[in-house]
Amino acid sequence: MKLQTPYLMFLGDAPDQLAAKTAQGVVDWRPEICIGQLKLDNCNADLGLPDLTLNEAFDKGVKTLIVGVANRGGVISNAWERTIVEAIEMGYDIASGLHNRLGDTPAIAEAAERCGRALYDVRHPTETFPIAVGSKRSGKRLLPVGTDCSVGKMYTALAITNEMKERGMKVSFRATGQTGIFIAGQGVSVDAVVADFISGATESIAPANDPDHWDIIEGQGSLFHASYAGVTMGLIHGSQADALVLCHEPTRPHMRGLPDFALPDIGDCMDANLHAAKLTNPNARFVGIAINTKHLDEAAALTLLAETADKYGLPCVDPVRTGVAAIVDQLG
Amino acid sequence: MKLQTPYLMFLGDAPDQLAAKTAQGVVDWRPEICIGQLKLDNCNADLGLPDLTLNEAFDKGVKTLIVGVANRGGVISNAWERTIVEAIEMGYDIASGLHNRLGDTPAIAEAAERCGRALYDVRHPTETFPIAVGSKRSGKRLLPVGTDCSVGKMYTALAITNEMKERGMKVSFRATGQTGIFIAGQGVSVDAVVADFISGATESIAPANDPDHWDIIEGQGSLFHASYAGVTMGLIHGSQADALVLCHEPTRPHMRGLPDFALPDIGDCMDANLHAAKLTNPNARFVGIAINTKHLDEAAALTLLAETADKYGLPCVDPVRTGVAAIVDQLG
Repeated sequence: MKLQTPYLMFLGDAPDQLAAKTAQGVVDWRPEICIGQLKLDNCNADLGLPDLTLNEAFDKGVKTLIVGVANRGGVISNAWERTIVEAIEMGYDIASGLHNRLGDTPAIAEAAERCGRALYDVRHPTETFPIAVGSKRSGKRLLPVGTDCSVGKMYTALAITNEMKERGMKVSFRATGQTGIFIAGQGVSVDAVVADFISGATESIAPANDPDHWDIIEGQGSLFHASYAGVTMGLIHGSQADALVLCHEPTRPHMRGLPDFALPDIGDCMDANLHAAKLTNPNARFVGIAINTKHLDEAAALTLLAETADKYGLPCVDPVRTGVAAIVDQLG
Repeated sequence: MKLQTPYLMFLGDAPDQLAAKTAQGVVDWRPEICIGQLKLDNCNADLGLPDLTLNEAFDKGVKTLIVGVANRGGVISNAWERTIVEAIEMGYDIASGLHNRLGDTPAIAEAAERCGRALYDVRHPTETFPIAVGSKRSGKRLLPVGTDCSVGKMYTALAITNEMKERGMKVSFRATGQTGIFIAGQGVSVDAVVADFISGATESIAPANDPDHWDIIEGQGSLFHASYAGVTMGLIHGSQADALVLCHEPTRPHMRGLPDFALPDIGDCMDANLHAAKLTNPNARFVGIAINTKHLDEAAALTLLAETADKYGLPCVDPVRTGVAAIVDQLG
């Protein structure tokens, strides 16, 4: 799978801005490939992009319509279906982050078949992966890991990727979730592969490379999340990370979706992740800590970053507030 | 899914006894439900059961034809297809442990549809599972974990189940792999569910129960196996094990299928598993060690068991050589 760029962002009838979170993430990180947005009636989200019709965007060279919003009730409405079919007939590929598959809507499947266009359901891997072999691959790899889900692992990975690019380093962002896949144009939703293949899929997306090339692999879940830790474990083993970055959100009251579970201590979390990582890379080490301080004021944020850096003897940054240069300084 | 018993064991044209390993496992643990075996020409496996035709077995009350052998080259041959279709038309359900799905063979799918019989592909879960919630469930649970794959975790779980039944304790074996599912008549191949649902599937198969009831959950993989540890991690969290049993095979030269990976130290392995288990059950503890000593002579085996028991302060048994009574003594 390799999504063709540039993109037109389809917002459908998104009820609010939050429903367009995935689309917003793509615009934030790849504004140069997001040419415009397409809204239907009753759309309450906006990405700050030009409003374009399918025809207008196609004339500007757009190749793929990105469905980066949640649809109401999990059903593709008639209005959505008409728009998507029209796009296919005009020559667009369609890439969707919906839970339901595009091809499960007969009119969409029929149009794609008839017009020879591609349908990409980025939540639903269709490739067959090998079982992980664990053999050392050339090249270097960095993996953000978290005290919890949704603490900024993708944001951290993308910020590190950009910082390394600016320094002229050889680097690739490797996507493991839907927003990351739209951003990178390729990748695998590792939480959606068959369980036996989590590590194998991860090995596949970050293959052997030049000795001085870095894969920055999007993290998923947390070893301390009772619902998803299996995904995280397989991702750690398959990534063979040389470098780990601990990601944390300091104001969260409990593990995401699990009111009975407190967040782990940062030190305990680093110990557990390092222990797991050393199975496939005995030289794995933490190179920094990334804290999402958006809910703290500037003074409190900077104090926390400084204290955490001091406590663990590692660079401690907020990718938004301070940038990630101090972490990239650790990557030889 | 609940397989109807008794079973007729289909051996097809199994090239050797090893190809019938799954079928043999079912016969070993549930001889009372395995009424006979059915071989085709060139079958080189034998389960020591009466050879019965489909008609003879049906007359004896058999309900399900168990396809518990590997098929050559992953293709269902014409001879297999004829036999399976004939069974369906006679009134059998079919349960298969093949990698390919029964319903992918059109004649088999058509016959099942036409005759209203069930096709069970036990390697391919069809249920939808919830995301794991991690909340404490009533009842008690035991999970065997291993230094490696295929070190006797299922055997240990079944032996403990039988010992507890003999003592009149409330106990259920919960199957997580194909042989276990044939033995229990139900269960889920947890290594074949979508990665996000490993823990959720495990929670589903071992639900809340009487406070003095034990679920003995079949283990899978190893936290130290670079290919499959994600499955093991999710299984540990979903099981909320009160009691863990460490399973080990002392003569293995390296991790199964991974020549570059040595087996972990038993103590390190117990530490890692206990750390993972405490996330969803802070009271988790090891209650014993099960060592597969079949490649050792009696004197060496008994010495190893005694030394290991002494070193870790836990009952140490070989389920085959010594039985598991010493472990069950630990379960209140």
